[in-house]
Amino acid sequence: MHSDLFLVLLYFFFFFEIHTIFLHCGITMLGMIWVRACSALVGFRAPTCVRSLHSFPGITVAQIDEEVAKLLALKAQLGDDGKTQFVLKTPKGTRDYNPKQMAIREKVFNTIIRCFKRHGAETIDTPVFELKETLTGKYGEDSKLIYDLKDQGGELLSLRYDLTVPFARYLAMNKITNIKRYHIAKVYRRDNPAMTRGRYREFYQCDFDIAGQYDAMIPDAECLKIVHEILNELDLGDFRIKVNDRRILDGMFAVCGVPDDKFRTICSTVDKLDKMSWEDVKKEMVNEKGLSEEAADQIGEYVSMQGGMDLAERLLQDHKMSQSKQACAGLSDIKLLFKYLQLFHVTDKVVFDLSLARGLDYYTGVIYEAVLTQAKESVSVGSVAGGGRYDGLVGMFDPKGRRVPCVGVSIGIERIFSIMEQKASPEKVRTTEVQIMVASAQKNLLEERLQLISELWNAGIKAEVMYKKNPKLLSQLQYCEEAGIPLVAILGEQELKDGVVKLRVVATREEVDISRADLISEIKRRTEA
Amino acid sequence: MHSDLFLVLLYFFFFFEIHTIFLHCGITMLGMIWVRACSALVGFRAPTCVRSLHSFPGITVAQIDEEVAKLLALKAQLGDDGKTQFVLKTPKGTRDYNPKQMAIREKVFNTIIRCFKRHGAETIDTPVFELKETLTGKYGEDSKLIYDLKDQGGELLSLRYDLTVPFARYLAMNKITNIKRYHIAKVYRRDNPAMTRGRYREFYQCDFDIAGQYDAMIPDAECLKIVHEILNELDLGDFRIKVNDRRILDGMFAVCGVPDDKFRTICSTVDKLDKMSWEDVKKEMVNEKGLSEEAADQIGEYVSMQGGMDLAERLLQDHKMSQSKQACAGLSDIKLLFKYLQLFHVTDKVVFDLSLARGLDYYTGVIYEAVLTQAKESVSVGSVAGGGRYDGLVGMFDPKGRRVPCVGVSIGIERIFSIMEQKASPEKVRTTEVQIMVASAQKNLLEERLQLISELWNAGIKAEVMYKKNPKLLSQLQYCEEAGIPLVAILGEQELKDGVVKLRVVATREEVDISRADLISEIKRRTEA
Repeated sequence: MHSDLFLVLLYFFFFFEIHTIFLHCGITMLGMIWVRACSALVGFRAPTCVRSLHSFPGITVAQIDEEVAKLLALKAQLGDDGKTQFVLKTPKGTRDYNPKQMAIREKVFNTIIRCFKRHGAETIDTPVFELKETLTGKYGEDSKLIYDLKDQGGELLSLRYDLTVPFARYLAMNKITNIKRYHIAKVYRRDNPAMTRGRYREFYQCDFDIAGQYDAMIPDAECLKIVHEILNELDLGDFRIKVNDRRILDGMFAVCGVPDDKFRTICSTVDKLDKMSWEDVKKEMVNEKGLSEEAADQIGEYVSMQGGMDLAERLLQDHKMSQSKQACAGLSDIKLLFKYLQLFHVTDKVVFDLSLARGLDYYTGVIYEAVLTQAKESVSVGSVAGGGRYDGLVGMFDPKGRRVPCVGVSIGIERIFSIMEQKASPEKVRTTEVQIMVASAQKNLLEERLQLISELWNAGIKAEVMYKKNPKLLSQLQYCEEAGIPLVAILGEQELKDGVVKLRVVATREEVDISRADLISEIKRRTEA
Repeated sequence: MHSDLFLVLLYFFFFFEIHTIFLHCGITMLGMIWVRACSALVGFRAPTCVRSLHSFPGITVAQIDEEVAKLLALKAQLGDDGKTQFVLKTPKGTRDYNPKQMAIREKVFNTIIRCFKRHGAETIDTPVFELKETLTGKYGEDSKLIYDLKDQGGELLSLRYDLTVPFARYLAMNKITNIKRYHIAKVYRRDNPAMTRGRYREFYQCDFDIAGQYDAMIPDAECLKIVHEILNELDLGDFRIKVNDRRILDGMFAVCGVPDDKFRTICSTVDKLDKMSWEDVKKEMVNEKGLSEEAADQIGEYVSMQGGMDLAERLLQDHKMSQSKQACAGLSDIKLLFKYLQLFHVTDKVVFDLSLARGLDYYTGVIYEAVLTQAKESVSVGSVAGGGRYDGLVGMFDPKGRRVPCVGVSIGIERIFSIMEQKASPEKVRTTEVQIMVASAQKNLLEERLQLISELWNAGIKAEVMYKKNPKLLSQLQYCEEAGIPLVAILGEQELKDGVVKLRVVATREEVDISRADLISEIKRRTEA
């Protein structure tokens, strides 16, 4: 009998073009589900559906009125004529890059890629989406931020959340046990965007990872050396690289009395120490996560500790910490790491910090995070690089569980862009590399201009011509000034007769006739300096 | 009373972990909808739900048995222990790129980008997904191939289908009326993949477009010049660039008696002439699209025509074609285009071909497509570049409908990769640029190796070291041969004492002692030649 209600609702749905309305309110799925629910019902129990629309036992006229009112309200939002108001924007949390931003981005990428290549890394690429199950169970509490694709028939897919899980999938799938690779690509997180601080839902990651069974801490130290090189070269101001170890954290949790099954969730809470005060972190541990006050206080003591190799040595002697084998293994590795970092001359920027947790589930050993210490523009951009060791992830993908130890680092490129953009003075950023404009002072010389520019292009010269039959010389020169084009090749009747081109230097307005035969070498000579 | 059936089904759902089962059969949505339908029912009419599970009027035990049997069959597919069989693969129609493929890809991209920059193009980037409504109504019959994202609350999103529509959206949104830009990025189509022929669901597009109100055919001619330059430089063998004009097609349809509302669908059919015989195309027009046999035959005559400027001139005199103003406008522009192409010396590769249609809805003027004419490896790769003029697209996004005329070209990079991959001999492709390996012949020199390589990195030398405390010299040298590293810096007790490094040329096995002070300049001298 209640299928009648559905029929009534269906009636309203179509009357008010409910599908369109829902579409624009972002709740189509709801509409779809209702409609499908109805058809499912109708299909499944067709015999009982043949009832009069005039009897609705179980629902009231008031309920229907209410539904109708809601739908009319939705309709009203669409405007008088019911026409859709077209929204001209990029999706929430995303942005376009204009040519000036791209020029800055290209510069930053080149610096980073140069560093990765200097360290002998190859590069790979993976699809932007993975099978949904590939990503399942890899990100802990952050899994809710994964973008799923709509099921349009076929496989269930999700947009990649980082480049690390696809990398591990790639290694397992291709049975690769040794590789040093970088991967620069976009990843997707349905997070609350904070775009002014460079936090987007679509953003680039620049990852460098070393996979393979090697002697302890050598590849790990190289990752930190890479962070140090990149942040130095990008000249973003002073920075610190915090290091810690998952085994130290887990050992600390154990000796502080955290139950085994709460390690990960307590670790997530500790991870918030860079954004929250200890008081609030403690409150979350005790009130939300159900940790004892005593355990929380003991954790509080440890996570306030910072130092270098000396702190690792001291904690190895700590009566409580030294009870954990795990913690001791982590502390010994931190000591070794600092030894190698000394050889690389980077210990001035590195600090062993027990409050560093990093939220992701897959880390198994050393972890690190770089932060800028000169808060420019009063806005903190948070961490600009981070990573660690994840020895178990590849094994999660291997049918036989074979382990491929990995360590890597991810450069937080979007935050770096935000800073670089603020630093760059927009008028000074050139967005093209054009060397010369082919211009004319007189009318009816389009064909001659096209012929000349074709010669220049064929000789590898970067050149532009205005797409007008008869452009004014002034507008051609103005274009050069705006675009930063250094040279102009001016054609006129006289020049054509003499077999020359008038070469003009935009900055000095100096002009000189150059024979057509010498033009290309002259342009190269003047612009390659 | 029928809610009872749902409760029973719900019971089975949970008993058999139906969600997991459905997940792996790719029909989760169905499961979700059923469950939600049930909860909707339960929520809405709670009072009527309080019934005994033992009475099911309206359904039979046979129906339940049938459902149970289906579920058990699904369960059986998951294996004996009910554990999920993990699938290690990339999504259908996608692939990873390994380092060798990436090295080839980088080379191809560099050639293409060099060409775009030579022509003065800036670059932009847009998000990988757009609001669904941004893509709606732009792709004609191909719209069904768009990937939608799941509605997870918020905006309805779709993966971009090409780079042209996002470009038009970008121009309208930023009120840009003049720009010459290239954009290299991945696009997504839920097509039937033909991966051996380089056809994927995720693939790169390399687009170059010129937006702005200019004199006729000048930017259009530059686009064809660019295709010519790129295909020449990539050295893929001989090629042809077919050109036509949407106005000529539409005029031809009109004078052949195609009804106005069938222009687009008939155009899609004509577009298949590169894959289907005329007979099959005609059959589709007449049988599926309802065109008269007479009209189809008249079209058949025109679409068999190929030529150059002469053909355009002849058709301007054609008694039927000349009746269409549109066709005449298109034919005059083709004539002008050929005039400019002669100045660029590229007419040898360009052919005016009336069978070229191109499926996309947004083209308004000249269209073109490049095909390789030397079918290598007996497999046809189809078109390797295509594009055209789309003067109306930006206006579709502008609230006031302001038009920004555009013309552009897209390089079919995946097909080009397929050919380049077949051409490249894999052993010759270097995947890194490493200049030198820091090695040692004796034990216990890890620290000295790390110190030296750090110096090299800081001097900008691309260098590697093995991540072992005591690697064998032989394995270090073997690594160099495999990776194509030309030099080795060998450290030993004696060299350390003498303040030198033994520099070994891998290819010749020649060794020479170089003082530490001269090492960096010596490496640069030997590798920058």
